[in-house]
Amino acid sequence: MLVRKCVRTLDYNCNLYYLFLYQKHYNEKNFLTLISSAGRLDGKMREKTLTMDTLNPQVKAVEYAVRGPIVLKAGEIERYLEEGGTKPFSEVIKANIGDAHAMGQQPITFLRQVVALCTFPELMDSPSFPEDAKWRARRILQGCGGHSLGSYSASPGVECIRKDIAAYIEQRDEGVPSDWENIYLTTGASDGIMTILRLLVSGKDSSRTGVMIPIPQYPLYSAAISEMDAVQVNYYLDEDNCWALDINELHRAYQAAKQHCQPRVICIINPGNPTGQVQSKKCIEEVLHFAYEENLFVMSDEVYQDNVYAPDCQFHSFKKVLYEMGPEYFSSVELVSFHSTSKGYTGECGFRGGYMEVINMDPEVKAQLVKLLSVRLCPPLAGQAAMDVIVNPPQPEEHTFKQFHQEKSSVLGALAEKAKLTEQILNAVPGIKCNPVQGAMYAFPRIFIPPKAVEEAKALGMQPDMLYCLRLLEETGICVVPGSGFGQKDRTYHFRMTILPSIEKLNVLLGKVRDFHISFLKEYSGLE
Amino acid sequence: MLVRKCVRTLDYNCNLYYLFLYQKHYNEKNFLTLISSAGRLDGKMREKTLTMDTLNPQVKAVEYAVRGPIVLKAGEIERYLEEGGTKPFSEVIKANIGDAHAMGQQPITFLRQVVALCTFPELMDSPSFPEDAKWRARRILQGCGGHSLGSYSASPGVECIRKDIAAYIEQRDEGVPSDWENIYLTTGASDGIMTILRLLVSGKDSSRTGVMIPIPQYPLYSAAISEMDAVQVNYYLDEDNCWALDINELHRAYQAAKQHCQPRVICIINPGNPTGQVQSKKCIEEVLHFAYEENLFVMSDEVYQDNVYAPDCQFHSFKKVLYEMGPEYFSSVELVSFHSTSKGYTGECGFRGGYMEVINMDPEVKAQLVKLLSVRLCPPLAGQAAMDVIVNPPQPEEHTFKQFHQEKSSVLGALAEKAKLTEQILNAVPGIKCNPVQGAMYAFPRIFIPPKAVEEAKALGMQPDMLYCLRLLEETGICVVPGSGFGQKDRTYHFRMTILPSIEKLNVLLGKVRDFHISFLKEYSGLE
Repeated sequence: MLVRKCVRTLDYNCNLYYLFLYQKHYNEKNFLTLISSAGRLDGKMREKTLTMDTLNPQVKAVEYAVRGPIVLKAGEIERYLEEGGTKPFSEVIKANIGDAHAMGQQPITFLRQVVALCTFPELMDSPSFPEDAKWRARRILQGCGGHSLGSYSASPGVECIRKDIAAYIEQRDEGVPSDWENIYLTTGASDGIMTILRLLVSGKDSSRTGVMIPIPQYPLYSAAISEMDAVQVNYYLDEDNCWALDINELHRAYQAAKQHCQPRVICIINPGNPTGQVQSKKCIEEVLHFAYEENLFVMSDEVYQDNVYAPDCQFHSFKKVLYEMGPEYFSSVELVSFHSTSKGYTGECGFRGGYMEVINMDPEVKAQLVKLLSVRLCPPLAGQAAMDVIVNPPQPEEHTFKQFHQEKSSVLGALAEKAKLTEQILNAVPGIKCNPVQGAMYAFPRIFIPPKAVEEAKALGMQPDMLYCLRLLEETGICVVPGSGFGQKDRTYHFRMTILPSIEKLNVLLGKVRDFHISFLKEYSGLE
Repeated sequence: MLVRKCVRTLDYNCNLYYLFLYQKHYNEKNFLTLISSAGRLDGKMREKTLTMDTLNPQVKAVEYAVRGPIVLKAGEIERYLEEGGTKPFSEVIKANIGDAHAMGQQPITFLRQVVALCTFPELMDSPSFPEDAKWRARRILQGCGGHSLGSYSASPGVECIRKDIAAYIEQRDEGVPSDWENIYLTTGASDGIMTILRLLVSGKDSSRTGVMIPIPQYPLYSAAISEMDAVQVNYYLDEDNCWALDINELHRAYQAAKQHCQPRVICIINPGNPTGQVQSKKCIEEVLHFAYEENLFVMSDEVYQDNVYAPDCQFHSFKKVLYEMGPEYFSSVELVSFHSTSKGYTGECGFRGGYMEVINMDPEVKAQLVKLLSVRLCPPLAGQAAMDVIVNPPQPEEHTFKQFHQEKSSVLGALAEKAKLTEQILNAVPGIKCNPVQGAMYAFPRIFIPPKAVEEAKALGMQPDMLYCLRLLEETGICVVPGSGFGQKDRTYHFRMTILPSIEKLNVLLGKVRDFHISFLKEYSGLE
């Protein structure tokens, strides 16, 4: 009894260890001596080396809403339900992150066949795998040391995959040339974005580096800027104009920032995350002209290039537009474009595949980039293989084309339908206004939050849309991310939700959001 | 003709694009107008934004010898040979990096079966896959969103894999408890090491953070320290005593460093890379006592824990030793231990799998760690699955055990043999002295370089062992890394070579090194 009581007073690890020691080596008396010696330590406890006071303050400054407090709360509720707890709902629906497979999207068969063949080459003898997949897998393995996915690749990636990517870009951009030596495989797009920013930003810089980002933005950018101690320079997208990028706003933001930092980079997300807009060619030209005039390095996040749903929209790559602007532009503007296996119609987030194409980078700097990449050795090979399938999919003359094409169209068709559905249902709710989801995977509706709710949130020390999203989660089990995590104009409130759940589930989700919103308005407007 | 001449004057990308435009849209006259407009630009060329002058100086300071200049040179020679060029050798043997599969080591069948099953779950129906592999794959997929390897996992990793790792550690450490919530999956060990250092190091710190590392070291450490602008605090391993860690040297290094920085972390690599020593339990106790006294955070790189060859050596985990030192130690010393799929008997570098176990970290700091990890979303799922197999391998009662055990023993047996062989052959060469390769995958022999060669190297502005290794590469095709890339005492010279080539190839390699060394000595000692 005494033993058990003592044990309860110590922490989990100590408990287990004492119990272990006790069972194994000690009798009760010895055990109690040990316990009490540990107890005595409480008084003269060694200070921890790493505390909130000594933690790198740049890490402390990082915020990442997509996996932030609301998602931790969702996890808690899930565990509570699993353990038999009751809520007004039976499951948590996580619409907080663009995680297609977690929402039930099926993998593209062909992609998985190729990666499985690369992983376990004995399958090359299996008649149940198509030849089209086998030759791709053989080709990838030829490019790997010892023909194994278990070897490190060169730091920029497997050569034949870099070549396939360059060929894909040339085709996508209708002949604009792509040099495979400008292609660098990455561990998801995030890794590439961090690496390029690392080159550009020095924390010790006296004239600090300004990084222009859209607001609303994907919070990887603000997190990276905080971690690297750069200056975040916000340019606001025009919500009243379908989240379009307004060139005058770029000028305003740039001029304002010049007062206190040196803006050196402009980041663009097209199609937009969280905003879902697809940039027009004219708008891209304006951005590139601006970057040219102001000597800005351009980072173009194009991971949603295959996710365009609006019939009047089309994806234009920054690179192609740059080339079409003529030699004075395409021979000088420094541009990096990012792509990923995680989005598009494959949704292979877990493979952490991606690439970047680097245009007009100073050759000496490029050597420094390769050096920096080499410290982390290489991106995961399975992710590189997955990327290869995306850029080198079955062709019409191949046997696998029909199934591949069906699967691809089915995913993209459903996303287009869900984009439309989300916009329609949300816009029918009083106090919610949602721009068309032209592309990407998210709706970012504006929500009216009554002044009384705003006051209540402020009293609780939280953002009003955080209060809203927490209430939504607690009452309906729906997990979305407050707009404040992405940035928004003062006194406007939003949330980001993915359009990834199945149509049935999305209908339920949107219906619940509608009912919640109406009752939330009633509650705080005193209309009951 | 004129066109072709013009084209030659422009760079590669421009060439292709002009050619494309020309073929597609323009007649020769228009084409020439375009070309000349590009030519005019030469005069008023826009300056690049990112140059060696504006590059983050911390990136510039990074060095990473394992994939440094000598490896680039080896690549050049390889391409030269492929294109039909001749050299006094027919192939380049890359003994520069611990890349087992590239050196012909075969993957462990069971590991690849599990990962293939996870990748392409249709294989669950295939009778050619063993049930032992299937249940593991099913269990891993149960832990993945949508039961797919294509989902993001939680940022610290898949829960059931974290639990398997904790169980493995408890077993390895003979009952010392491991809490699965202290386990974080990583993208290879490098990623974990960088992440932990990021928490500890702030570039803006006025009393700058000192990071104690062994010399010789694995250059990831020095690279990370440069990138983060920390202060590298060298403690020298004792070459005369089998590269043992000498506690007096730790004290010396610490006291010296305190004059100009705040040492806060000590990094240990055990078994040693590049030095191959295996630390005794007594030595580990001394290090932990030192860390306790001086309030140092301990980072223990234990990726070679399965690679111990010397019969009188045994791997002791820092954690187990810490626990055995009693409650005043194990309840206070902050310790992180790193492991990886890349080494051991699996050698799965390309999967970029790994984990870290974090002991005694302040709970608030741990929350910050999770936040930081979440910005990069999650480690690659295939790497997590591979890690799971390593910590949860076939058991004696399982059908797959026999084959698994054979494959594992065969790899480790061969490595032990090659460790012995390398030491013996090298020590028989006059002017080479090689400590026993007790563990890990490398020999780090000391080489005598004649004063004349040292002078010649200095005149060329390079380290003497770089000259030596470049000559070795040029004359024999053998690629090893100069000791200067790892650090060494002044006026001592070494190189690091892996023991990974097959026994036949290793014999050839060592013979060539011997012949080269003898002729190098002759040449520079004027003994001919």
